[in-house]
Amino acid sequence: MTKKAIISIIMGSDSDLPVMMEAKKIFDEYGVPSDVKILSAHRSPDDAASFAKSARKNGYKIIIAGAGASAHLAGVVASHTTLPVIGVPMETKELKGVDSLFSTVQMPAGIPVATVAIGRAGAKNSAILALEILGITDKRIEKRLVAHKKAMAEGVREKNKTIKF
Amino acid sequence: MTKKAIISIIMGSDSDLPVMMEAKKIFDEYGVPSDVKILSAHRSPDDAASFAKSARKNGYKIIIAGAGASAHLAGVVASHTTLPVIGVPMETKELKGVDSLFSTVQMPAGIPVATVAIGRAGAKNSAILALEILGITDKRIEKRLVAHKKAMAEGVREKNKTIKF
Amino acid sequence: MTKKAIISIIMGSDSDLPVMMEAKKIFDEYGVPSDVKILSAHRSPDDAASFAKSARKNGYKIIIAGAGASAHLAGVVASHTTLPVIGVPMETKELKGVDSLFSTVQMPAGIPVATVAIGRAGAKNSAILALEILGITDKRIEKRLVAHKKAMAEGVREKNKTIKF
Amino acid sequence: MTKKAIISIIMGSDSDLPVMMEAKKIFDEYGVPSDVKILSAHRSPDDAASFAKSARKNGYKIIIAGAGASAHLAGVVASHTTLPVIGVPMETKELKGVDSLFSTVQMPAGIPVATVAIGRAGAKNSAILALEILGITDKRIEKRLVAHKKAMAEGVREKNKTIKF
Amino acid sequence: MTKKAIISIIMGSDSDLPVMMEAKKIFDEYGVPSDVKILSAHRSPDDAASFAKSARKNGYKIIIAGAGASAHLAGVVASHTTLPVIGVPMETKELKGVDSLFSTVQMPAGIPVATVAIGRAGAKNSAILALEILGITDKRIEKRLVAHKKAMAEGVREKNKTIKF
Amino acid sequence: MTKKAIISIIMGSDSDLPVMMEAKKIFDEYGVPSDVKILSAHRSPDDAASFAKSARKNGYKIIIAGAGASAHLAGVVASHTTLPVIGVPMETKELKGVDSLFSTVQMPAGIPVATVAIGRAGAKNSAILALEILGITDKRIEKRLVAHKKAMAEGVREKNKTIKF
Amino acid sequence: MTKKAIISIIMGSDSDLPVMMEAKKIFDEYGVPSDVKILSAHRSPDDAASFAKSARKNGYKIIIAGAGASAHLAGVVASHTTLPVIGVPMETKELKGVDSLFSTVQMPAGIPVATVAIGRAGAKNSAILALEILGITDKRIEKRLVAHKKAMAEGVREKNKTIKF
Amino acid sequence: MTKKAIISIIMGSDSDLPVMMEAKKIFDEYGVPSDVKILSAHRSPDDAASFAKSARKNGYKIIIAGAGASAHLAGVVASHTTLPVIGVPMETKELKGVDSLFSTVQMPAGIPVATVAIGRAGAKNSAILALEILGITDKRIEKRLVAHKKAMAEGVREKNKTIKF
Repeated sequence: MTKKAIISIIMGSDSDLPVMMEAKKIFDEYGVPSDVKILSAHRSPDDAASFAKSARKNGYKIIIAGAGASAHLAGVVASHTTLPVIGVPMETKELKGVDSLFSTVQMPAGIPVATVAIGRAGAKNSAILALEILGITDKRIEKRLVAHKKAMAEGVREKNKTIKF
Repeated sequence: MTKKAIISIIMGSDSDLPVMMEAKKIFDEYGVPSDVKILSAHRSPDDAASFAKSARKNGYKIIIAGAGASAHLAGVVASHTTLPVIGVPMETKELKGVDSLFSTVQMPAGIPVATVAIGRAGAKNSAILALEILGITDKRIEKRLVAHKKAMAEGVREKNKTIKF
Repeated sequence: MTKKAIISIIMGSDSDLPVMMEAKKIFDEYGVPSDVKILSAHRSPDDAASFAKSARKNGYKIIIAGAGASAHLAGVVASHTTLPVIGVPMETKELKGVDSLFSTVQMPAGIPVATVAIGRAGAKNSAILALEILGITDKRIEKRLVAHKKAMAEGVREKNKTIKF
Repeated sequence: MTKKAIISIIMGSDSDLPVMMEAKKIFDEYGVPSDVKILSAHRSPDDAASFAKSARKNGYKIIIAGAGASAHLAGVVASHTTLPVIGVPMETKELKGVDSLFSTVQMPAGIPVATVAIGRAGAKNSAILALEILGITDKRIEKRLVAHKKAMAEGVREKNKTIKF
Repeated sequence: MTKKAIISIIMGSDSDLPVMMEAKKIFDEYGVPSDVKILSAHRSPDDAASFAKSARKNGYKIIIAGAGASAHLAGVVASHTTLPVIGVPMETKELKGVDSLFSTVQMPAGIPVATVAIGRAGAKNSAILALEILGITDKRIEKRLVAHKKAMAEGVREKNKTIKF
Repeated sequence: MTKKAIISIIMGSDSDLPVMMEAKKIFDEYGVPSDVKILSAHRSPDDAASFAKSARKNGYKIIIAGAGASAHLAGVVASHTTLPVIGVPMETKELKGVDSLFSTVQMPAGIPVATVAIGRAGAKNSAILALEILGITDKRIEKRLVAHKKAMAEGVREKNKTIKF
Repeated sequence: MTKKAIISIIMGSDSDLPVMMEAKKIFDEYGVPSDVKILSAHRSPDDAASFAKSARKNGYKIIIAGAGASAHLAGVVASHTTLPVIGVPMETKELKGVDSLFSTVQMPAGIPVATVAIGRAGAKNSAILALEILGITDKRIEKRLVAHKKAMAEGVREKNKTIKF
Repeated sequence: MTKKAIISIIMGSDSDLPVMMEAKKIFDEYGVPSDVKILSAHRSPDDAASFAKSARKNGYKIIIAGAGASAHLAGVVASHTTLPVIGVPMETKELKGVDSLFSTVQMPAGIPVATVAIGRAGAKNSAILALEILGITDKRIEKRLVAHKKAMAEGVREKNKTIKF
């Protein structure tokens, strides 16, 4: 990637990578430069804090954070930046991600995390949400989002031609 | 309000007004023009759809939607616009807002809702999140958010001077 | 199918098809004309609204809607029609369908969704419920439902002859 | 009431009466004859069974059953009739009605209960749902439901004229 | 079995048989005559009621009922008899048996169901509980239960001799 | 009380007394001698163990244990006796008794606790269940339970004479 | 306070103070020097990190952290210190503290938080747990804990002398 | 093992052994002598009580207890000792460990259990927490914990060198 990333996709563990790459793929399709990092709120807290504090200065516009269980990563990053932070609650083995969801979404007044769905759908939507945010001022992205919306509707229509009953 | 609103705060019922006005108050403090509407995904679905479809053209940049129980408002609006939609799950009498939260956050891939905390903290954070989004490109807002973050930290420090134990 | 469908079975995604076909099969057995469509509250909202608005005029008497997660389809359709809408909450990977259930059943006063069980049992019951509704005025259907009830009881009795302990 | 009731509203305890009367009031407004009975699946099971078995013959077209906790009333009645049974899960002191909801909605294949929302919204919606069912064949009711839908939308619009922000 | 059964093990579906046979096996080991029947609160309600009403007269002392989801069987049986009814909540595919548990245990004042754990552990414990009840007056059973308790403790001690760490 | 108690009602804290006295009152009405003790699985574990070990020898036939939160009392007592133990999960301030319910009912194979509903309904039902157990062999109690069942059904019928709608 | 605190009691907001003072009171009774600070993982993250990093050097032996909702404070502090961190999940208005509990307890491998009960019982137990930890090496504290345990058992016994039934 | 164990790892069943050995392995790495026992609160209650009462005198400093479902082991042991007790809630087949978690963590005031995460992460963290407790006074352990913390952060950094996107 030659262009400097404006979206940072971070996650608490490399086991989250297959899910979070869903977001990366969408940015690649839209030609929006993004990068991916493992950053743990608990195992590498100083790195997470440094990253968050310098994120704006480093050219990032939006941060996407995926984490599971006591999912503190999005919240910790949000505490150190005024950039919008999108949180993706990871599915967990035991509590199925309801722990990740509550940990990510129930933020106190003053430090929001824009939370999306648990797991893979959430990872994809974190990218779409970020594109919508960029699309407020970027006509090209907005146009593509409109086209994507139409394509989704068209895709549903096409399905109806093939189902047999 | 003389300036045209760029933030639309909508909600499913006027009983949500006291909670959602927390968002409005913050926009007023920041001098960001916003307006407030009751729009029900279920009782006035055509108005909700029309609103969403023309929101961008009407000058809105971000939509904040508060709804409770089978909280479909944010999702319905998101289905009709490529603007970022922030969902505030309202507390409910019986299920305490866990129904509102699941209905708002568990959106399918393609149509994200940026979900914040249940109830009053969520309403406040919907405004802060919107300001963070605007602050990506608006230096003035970004500066105020940084100041607000400092003031929050300072506020915590001040509390420590007064607590007695 | 030569006769015009009076029951519409819709669902948010073609991945719901295997489950929702349980309903279709029952209508076929009863000789009640029904059809099946994919319609997404989120990906094809205008189609969903158009469908719902013209459903009665198009000869439908009852609508069955299956959807999962932020399951808005039944509610969105119900907001546009005065036909009875039966909602089938789909099982979901993470929250096991409790999200679908809450999103489908917790409708606000004025716009009911007749909700049945999560998943396959619900899909079957959506058909039985629809037949019961038709059976209020249709003697032939009512008779078959009575026979079905007797057969279910008889089936239980038969099982007792074969179990070994 | 001079006309013979075609809707039966039953409930497990007279403590459910204030909530379930929300349904009765709506039928009165629509001029649809209905009556109200206390019938307990657990304390008066034979009466509940007799009632259900003879409900159709006694002229009822739809049964609405409100019950809480181990809410078996709707299911028990449904097991004895082929009339559509609408279940209203009552709010409970400890589990807030989630017990009532699961007991009412999770019916096995073959014996559906058309479940609506927990508590007061559910009681109202049980009546609207019953009217929608009657409205399949009754033009007068259907017209009134259409008018009611319009009035709801209009009501939302009117609210917007009075809110101050 | 030559001796007349004093324990009746009933269940809502033959799919519950593998789990409920855990109870049967324990009665066989203790030489307590028991029998097994499929009886559905919903599919064969009259059979279930008849069974319950004549259970005492037919020589039964305790009834064990296993059922899942809207698990009404134990409650329905309890409404028709003054014999103690033990309820075993079956595991369910979607809600994992929390629906079965709430439906079984949350009985209204006056009609108790003695509820045990969800699934296999519960099935076993329904038998032990029944034996404890019989053991109040039956010395032989009581002695065996005491021996079983000692054997369980001894079994734990034996395990400690074999574990390697 | 002149007659030696055959039912022991124990509870983890004297704050549980108002709820658990519902059980005591029923035994008094039936003339079944019972007594009440505070015994904590956690604060007085040796007393709880001694009590349980000598319960049968001290003439008790059934033990009823009410406890909340990490509700271990019923399980701890059950581990030390072969008498039937009935557990009443107390309502709790935060988790509403779902913690008490899971702690009481989810016992491992071998040591059952006969669990009844959370709170007041459960306390009453613990007594009815105990009476049903005694009624297996005690004709007088069994007759009264039958009469009570009839009175409950009659009570429901009486209510229907007074409700106005 | 003349002696240097060895226990630090921190909490996310001064609204947690009344609950967390339950811990402080116990330390005062035991003569264990402790102090109290407001420190927010989200509003004053740098202060929280600095505090945690220098806690051991500043003479603290144990840290007690109370926080609610997306309760990240205990986890954030634990990420910066090797001192034992005890987490007290605060009760919350909507989700009753189940959000706080999941956020506090579900920590990833490597960074434990010793979690106690939700709310007031948890605050008290955080102090007892800290005293037990100190009591491993401090005979005086251990003696007092033994005495406290005896007093609790005695307290239960005393209650039994006063209850009337 | 030649050195006398100062950490006791106990669990309710040998089926918990693979999970709880995660703790044992960590103590072995740190050279902290520990041993492993099966002790059931329900199947071998007297052994569990004896163990707990003599644990301090037998040289143990900390007890780690893993148990599932009605997970009483940690609480029962805590009721008999003033040593710190760490509870590991085991994952369960049906309720996924939420039953184990509530049973373990919701202890009444006076008898804390230091609860860690459900399952494998919790087992590992029970060891780290115990080491942190020992590290208050043991410089060698503390140093290793600091090194472990650094290694975790370093490990995260290393991962970033290998991920490809």
